[in-house]
Amino acid sequence: MIDPREFIREKRERGTHPPERVRAFIDAYLRDEVRDYQVSAWLMAAFLNGLDESETAALTGALIDSGRRFDWTDLGRPSADKHSTGGVGDKISLILAPLVAACGVLVPMVSGRGLGHTGGTLDKLESIHGFKTQLSVGAMRAQLDKLSVVMVGQGPDLAPADGRLYALRDVTSTVEFEPFIVSSIVSKKVAEGALGIAYDVKVGSGAFMKTREAAVHLARRLVATTRAFGRRASALVTDMSQPLGEACGNALEVRESLDVLEGRGPTDVRELTLRLAAEMLCLSGAEASVDDGLERARTALDRGAAKERFLDLVAAQGGDPRQVEQTDGLPRAPVIVPVHAARAGVLRSIDTFRLGDLVVDIGGGRRSKEDDVDPSVGIMVRRRLGDEVTRGDLLAELHLRREDEAVLTRAAACFEIGDAGLDPPPLVVERIGEP
Amino acid sequence: MIDPREFIREKRERGTHPPERVRAFIDAYLRDEVRDYQVSAWLMAAFLNGLDESETAALTGALIDSGRRFDWTDLGRPSADKHSTGGVGDKISLILAPLVAACGVLVPMVSGRGLGHTGGTLDKLESIHGFKTQLSVGAMRAQLDKLSVVMVGQGPDLAPADGRLYALRDVTSTVEFEPFIVSSIVSKKVAEGALGIAYDVKVGSGAFMKTREAAVHLARRLVATTRAFGRRASALVTDMSQPLGEACGNALEVRESLDVLEGRGPTDVRELTLRLAAEMLCLSGAEASVDDGLERARTALDRGAAKERFLDLVAAQGGDPRQVEQTDGLPRAPVIVPVHAARAGVLRSIDTFRLGDLVVDIGGGRRSKEDDVDPSVGIMVRRRLGDEVTRGDLLAELHLRREDEAVLTRAAACFEIGDAGLDPPPLVVERIGEP
Repeated sequence: MIDPREFIREKRERGTHPPERVRAFIDAYLRDEVRDYQVSAWLMAAFLNGLDESETAALTGALIDSGRRFDWTDLGRPSADKHSTGGVGDKISLILAPLVAACGVLVPMVSGRGLGHTGGTLDKLESIHGFKTQLSVGAMRAQLDKLSVVMVGQGPDLAPADGRLYALRDVTSTVEFEPFIVSSIVSKKVAEGALGIAYDVKVGSGAFMKTREAAVHLARRLVATTRAFGRRASALVTDMSQPLGEACGNALEVRESLDVLEGRGPTDVRELTLRLAAEMLCLSGAEASVDDGLERARTALDRGAAKERFLDLVAAQGGDPRQVEQTDGLPRAPVIVPVHAARAGVLRSIDTFRLGDLVVDIGGGRRSKEDDVDPSVGIMVRRRLGDEVTRGDLLAELHLRREDEAVLTRAAACFEIGDAGLDPPPLVVERIGEP
Repeated sequence: MIDPREFIREKRERGTHPPERVRAFIDAYLRDEVRDYQVSAWLMAAFLNGLDESETAALTGALIDSGRRFDWTDLGRPSADKHSTGGVGDKISLILAPLVAACGVLVPMVSGRGLGHTGGTLDKLESIHGFKTQLSVGAMRAQLDKLSVVMVGQGPDLAPADGRLYALRDVTSTVEFEPFIVSSIVSKKVAEGALGIAYDVKVGSGAFMKTREAAVHLARRLVATTRAFGRRASALVTDMSQPLGEACGNALEVRESLDVLEGRGPTDVRELTLRLAAEMLCLSGAEASVDDGLERARTALDRGAAKERFLDLVAAQGGDPRQVEQTDGLPRAPVIVPVHAARAGVLRSIDTFRLGDLVVDIGGGRRSKEDDVDPSVGIMVRRRLGDEVTRGDLLAELHLRREDEAVLTRAAACFEIGDAGLDPPPLVVERIGEP
């Protein structure tokens, strides 16, 4: 029996919890022997006084063991997955998962929904009519065996304590604390059963991490904590000072993903997908090096194997693959409004956070978990940072349910055009991983 | 409407709350619009990041206004009260309240029960058979008008938010934080209606405050916060490195109080009572100076006016005054066990905290609010710090329900006899107040 008061006091006094006490506290919480108001006092004490690596690992382990650990090793194939900390226009998973699967690696991908200014993979997939994101473990296993890939939402089995803790953090202003973020992400990824995990830690105006230092720190902690559970891990810290690709909005992003699967589409989306695929192929052991992984992934993408796997995935999870192949198969917004450059110059910055926020406001995302999402709406961003523009040039297109002058004004305000030139930011800022 | 998450975040980020937001937060809590788990996260953030004087005063005001403010000004007499932070053998209130009342000053004293190693005034009074500590406001007013003194427990009307907050602090390890201690004490004293308040802040092994610095700091904050509500206030920081007087235990302390009321009894109890009475008489405006107050109080005590008022008080609140006057009127423990000095030397220290704890364990106090208290048990401490003793000298007497070797051993271990001499500590360490 743990005394919750003593445990809270230990952190209040800047002590370090022995790992077994962290676990006992979380276990007692799940048995309702420790109450919400005691956990929230501890959350704040930890937020302000810190948790070290061993405490973070112990918390992660307790969250994992609050549910079941999936195990796909009996399928006899290497496995890997990717997690992104979230950004605007980040549709990488839709291309990456089938691509890596097409290279013979299991991808048991468990994704989330969008909340706040970032989109979620499940919302994007659900813009495909009929696509089911809740599968039984048996159905997951059967599909993994057949296609090597499954893309689902988090069921009640997977790290349920994380959901309870997150809800409490949300209402007690204890969300933005690295050890909590790390334990929440890693617990789900480890429980999900992939043996190699590549992290994509976003940095910039559209990311939760605003500075390179904070992003690199988070990336290192994600990798270290994942490794503490016997999994291989690496991380790319990548740019989110502008949207990834052009499409921001659920159906728009599915369409752009298909472009990339067909060998077209924005360069940055293709490039980052290949870089992350290379990490996953290497982490899984399917390829001996990241360079070999890159070569293998490029070949699979260019030969159409990834596209084929994506269409098989859509069909296997209840969607009609013709929807994504035909021009008008996915939901389309009735109104398209252009955003023009108000002056000539160089595109110096894009307020990507506000742009993501705008997509939410026009119906493409949710403020609270209960909100419905309109798959058709969004923004196509037609220019990149550093581009020269003349007055009246098309910067973006808004896909709306109805005409809305205020939205147009807000969208235009997200683009800053200046005089001086600008070196576009590198797509991959830093890599944390084995050589 | 206050956003509790924003309020919590403000303190988490070391901000200073505007007073009206502190009040809005507490008010929303009382309306159940803010939840326990949000308040406890804030309690911890405040504990770790601090509350300044203005925030402490705002919290105090919100606690006061969660209930009613008693007002006795229509009785047309000066008023005063005393609050002690708690110690072992502290029976001062029993002598002080009738003494000050006998000098013509209203004493509307609201007291608490013992919890942990310290005793409580209500428990001591209830060792007098029939004594009622819950009176209606009407009964309090009638008795104040007649006797100028009433000694009661905190009813549900008085600062109810303090009770709710205290219960939450107790289970979330956020008790020992000066601004919370100050707001809890001052809110009850201000709501109770006395216009002058003398604080007795204990320091030493038997007190919550272990260092002089911490005690003086608390004393200053109590005085300043009380003055912020338009009341006059002063504080004495007094020694609790040994029990106050000889008697520790409810009925034993009532008996010792009567000794002091009759002009006998331990010097320290008499002295401290007179010093605090002088403060109260001066704060109430009944006397022009503390010296005048001291003179007046000494006269009232020596002429028997205080004793007479005490017996009237007992009778008015339902007790038979003959119980306290007769030798065998109060409950007596069946077994009395002497504690002897194991060696010759000088009494160098008394572990007063452990001595108080021992009284609780033999049945004289409570570990939780639901525990029953045995009024008869306790300890008579026969020697003072600095006394020379020879081997076998009587140090103390245990008043027990039954023989208990372990208790005797524990009691003996509280007394440390050494070789070197010792200057006994001063009774009043420091005074904070108007000159």
